[in-house]
Amino acid sequence: MNNLPINPQSLRNLIRHGKLSQPTSGMAPGHVQANLAILPKSLAFEFLLFCQRNPKPCPLIEVIEAGSVEPISTAPGADLRTDIPKYRVFKHGELVAEVEDISEFWNDDLVSFLLGCSFSFENSLIRAGISLRHFENGTNVAMYVTNIPTKASGLFSGPMVVSMRPIPRHQVVRAVQITSRFPGVHGAPVHIGDPTAIGIDNIYKPDMGDLNGIKEDEVPVFWACGVTPQVIAMNSKPPLMITHSPGHMFITDIVDEDLAIL
Amino acid sequence: MNNLPINPQSLRNLIRHGKLSQPTSGMAPGHVQANLAILPKSLAFEFLLFCQRNPKPCPLIEVIEAGSVEPISTAPGADLRTDIPKYRVFKHGELVAEVEDISEFWNDDLVSFLLGCSFSFENSLIRAGISLRHFENGTNVAMYVTNIPTKASGLFSGPMVVSMRPIPRHQVVRAVQITSRFPGVHGAPVHIGDPTAIGIDNIYKPDMGDLNGIKEDEVPVFWACGVTPQVIAMNSKPPLMITHSPGHMFITDIVDEDLAIL
Repeated sequence: MNNLPINPQSLRNLIRHGKLSQPTSGMAPGHVQANLAILPKSLAFEFLLFCQRNPKPCPLIEVIEAGSVEPISTAPGADLRTDIPKYRVFKHGELVAEVEDISEFWNDDLVSFLLGCSFSFENSLIRAGISLRHFENGTNVAMYVTNIPTKASGLFSGPMVVSMRPIPRHQVVRAVQITSRFPGVHGAPVHIGDPTAIGIDNIYKPDMGDLNGIKEDEVPVFWACGVTPQVIAMNSKPPLMITHSPGHMFITDIVDEDLAIL
Repeated sequence: MNNLPINPQSLRNLIRHGKLSQPTSGMAPGHVQANLAILPKSLAFEFLLFCQRNPKPCPLIEVIEAGSVEPISTAPGADLRTDIPKYRVFKHGELVAEVEDISEFWNDDLVSFLLGCSFSFENSLIRAGISLRHFENGTNVAMYVTNIPTKASGLFSGPMVVSMRPIPRHQVVRAVQITSRFPGVHGAPVHIGDPTAIGIDNIYKPDMGDLNGIKEDEVPVFWACGVTPQVIAMNSKPPLMITHSPGHMFITDIVDEDLAIL
């Protein structure tokens, strides 16, 4: 990513004009990146309520009402139809397109939800000297479907998906403290240690992403994962749902510290 | 309030059967009491989004969907139609009834919102040795309409209402720390000191409640107030809106610490 601009506006501008379509990890360091979920207005209340009931897997950053494409609080001037490198379009739960521009699918009945992503709290962990294996390896984090139920809202219900990071035993408490400051990006862990206690039978076989090994002196620590609302929304087979493609996030103007509680 | 039971279920039971209709301040110590706002389903998405955008004045405790009267998360077994000592019923923004039971106004199109109330953080302030004048005097807290705008959502927009508590200068920092732990009940102050900076021209004339004096060594500290969403919802003149009567709150089963972030 040499020669990339570091400010969010310039990056979104390159993305909008088709000059940047790669995953956004590491771009605009310190700025909040967000998951995107777009749904028809008829499902918006139920989905918003689902997020309100399940803030750990579904931390809302901003909701953009039907008829608007601009996140005025977190990225004024941006256009949600063009400013993400890659989108996925689903109809009745089936992937029908992966595109760099969703203008052709857009209509004024769609409500857009920006949800926090783990990049923000991972930056904080790294700044605190807690190294993250999947960063070192350049791979994806390991994700698992658990037996932890979410609180249902209308059509939306199902188990929580978690991400797992192996943390050195002596840094586990610090990792809890650091991520607790960021409830807007998944917050504190949902579980520490024994995977079977949350319904993960084989830690070596993630449901999504890559296992990057767990060393002798490390403890598996589990955080609520932003994949949860997408998986659950998809299970309800909405007539139309648009999301970002995995790893291709929306880059906002706000900084990680804007989401810190203390 | 001698001889009153101290557990929430017994109190709600007395209220339900018409044996208790007084203000709930001081009842079931340590348990969260909540503001109530009931609106037609057609306004529910906009109001929920208004709360999401303005968490300080509108801290959601629980949302009860149309067709249900039971807050299953915070007070299982309760009935929102009967378990509050006194309600106010508004049609098109006009008060049409003040009653102890809203069964006759109920229909399955209504969505109920329980919102955090300052009793919880006031308990925490008092436990920390910060005395509150309106408690000592047995009066209401002073409330003011400010020039701080809320973030609009559909019909819902307008200025934030704040409550003011005079805090001894040497305890102001501690008061910020303590209330910061409770974002679910208004959280940290929105302003410290000079009232004119937030559009309050005469601190001695509250818009609601009672001024209880400000001593030489005290600083006026302002918190977002739960009256805000009611005032704003009322201004939009919804066809039907039902609230608790001032001071007559819904007593939940959860405890103050359940709402603490750290």
